[in-house]
Amino acid sequence: MTEMNRHSDAPIGVFDSGLGGLTVMREIMRTLPEENIIYFGDTARVPYGSKSRDTIIHYVEQILHFMQEKEVKAIVVACGTASAYALEAVRHKVKVPILGVVRPGVRAASAATKNGRIGVIGTEASVKSGLYESLLHGINPELSVVSRACPLFVPLVEEGLWHDEITTLAAKRYLSELKEKDVDTLIMGCTHYPLLAGTIREVMGEGVNLVNIGVETAQVLKRILNEQGITKKTTDAPAVYRFYSSDAPEKLCRFGESALQMEIPEAARISIEEY
Amino acid sequence: MTEMNRHSDAPIGVFDSGLGGLTVMREIMRTLPEENIIYFGDTARVPYGSKSRDTIIHYVEQILHFMQEKEVKAIVVACGTASAYALEAVRHKVKVPILGVVRPGVRAASAATKNGRIGVIGTEASVKSGLYESLLHGINPELSVVSRACPLFVPLVEEGLWHDEITTLAAKRYLSELKEKDVDTLIMGCTHYPLLAGTIREVMGEGVNLVNIGVETAQVLKRILNEQGITKKTTDAPAVYRFYSSDAPEKLCRFGESALQMEIPEAARISIEEY
Repeated sequence: MTEMNRHSDAPIGVFDSGLGGLTVMREIMRTLPEENIIYFGDTARVPYGSKSRDTIIHYVEQILHFMQEKEVKAIVVACGTASAYALEAVRHKVKVPILGVVRPGVRAASAATKNGRIGVIGTEASVKSGLYESLLHGINPELSVVSRACPLFVPLVEEGLWHDEITTLAAKRYLSELKEKDVDTLIMGCTHYPLLAGTIREVMGEGVNLVNIGVETAQVLKRILNEQGITKKTTDAPAVYRFYSSDAPEKLCRFGESALQMEIPEAARISIEEY
Repeated sequence: MTEMNRHSDAPIGVFDSGLGGLTVMREIMRTLPEENIIYFGDTARVPYGSKSRDTIIHYVEQILHFMQEKEVKAIVVACGTASAYALEAVRHKVKVPILGVVRPGVRAASAATKNGRIGVIGTEASVKSGLYESLLHGINPELSVVSRACPLFVPLVEEGLWHDEITTLAAKRYLSELKEKDVDTLIMGCTHYPLLAGTIREVMGEGVNLVNIGVETAQVLKRILNEQGITKKTTDAPAVYRFYSSDAPEKLCRFGESALQMEIPEAARISIEEY
């Protein structure tokens, strides 16, 4: 699909079904502050988490066409669901490095656990994919993995209820089994969830390692750019960030300003169905 | 778009952004038990409630093309958001009778209120449209109207939490202002909400008239079929119901069995983007 782009000042393409991927962009900005970034949020078709595998792959292919047009040098699938369902199906179609958020999260969790009991939370689709379990067991078959879908977390985040008793009640419900099973490490397998980290920590207790898949993904991206020799030089022009969405760009701006703690004067709306 | 279809045994087309419209279909089945019905749920692109006007109109046009192919004799827009945003924009493009759920709900509420204070709850987009207020004020400029978006209600319904303390907590939050303002009539302006009627009644109190827009719409539909002389004859073959969705048809079957209290052996998946 895309040809390798060896220009180190070409942007990194980051996308998500909606706005949660901005938490991954935030970590990339922290880890690689020189890099130009293009963000696309598929807000017209959010959420992916309740959709089928075929639909998700079809959507991701359209987004990769858009990223190709923007001549990105690397692509981050900043969406737990799309990473779980579509990444392997589309990987061979792109010529630039492409990475998702699942594998970095899995590696971090398997390194962090002491008691061998790992919890995974995500959308319905992510959890149903079984990918976390199979990757964790690939690393260590002895690991005990408990997964739980938390379908209300995305709407709660998108409605701004990051600290709210409704969110706490939902979190207690979703996390009770993971607490009972005494997991010492919890993969927040959806990029929206870091915005609920306060509530999740409160419910799970201080002793549990919370794995932010965005932090881990940014580290892996840094290493890949380095290995490929396409890291942007610090002497180049300052980083430029561009934002696109398939619907309601003003919502992306508003949400992005809280999530990224920076001003987002504009986001462009694109017709992703035409890609 | 569609030519007038005068065959009285042609189906009625009913559609929604997702599964909520099944509550309207249920009322049509009760009111017009002979009629054949085609249901389409745009489950790949649900929810419409957080999307922009242009996007919603575009989606509805695609669905009308699909309904045209199915040679329906009348169309019910069983979605509060699509009725508020798209119905007037597309009405001139169809040759068969088309009706939404907003006007029937408005007429019922204005007839039911005693104290002239009416509450409206719906999705973010429906409430933002201001259509309920303007139609209610068109009937009676003295009416006092209080509107409130309840964005968590659709995900709560689709997750099956019809009777749950999380839903009660969300309902108390959303409805507090309407209670304070002493509304005696509440329009449930989203077709998902009848499934939360128990909780909404509990929070609002027994004295409040809850307007189920599906019930009202089925009555208007009955009158229109009658006026046009296209009511199906009771001596024709028994009613046939067909179900389509743009994603995960098994989810429609499962949800539909609870909502319609009937067995739904199959639903077909269609690529609505191609219409």
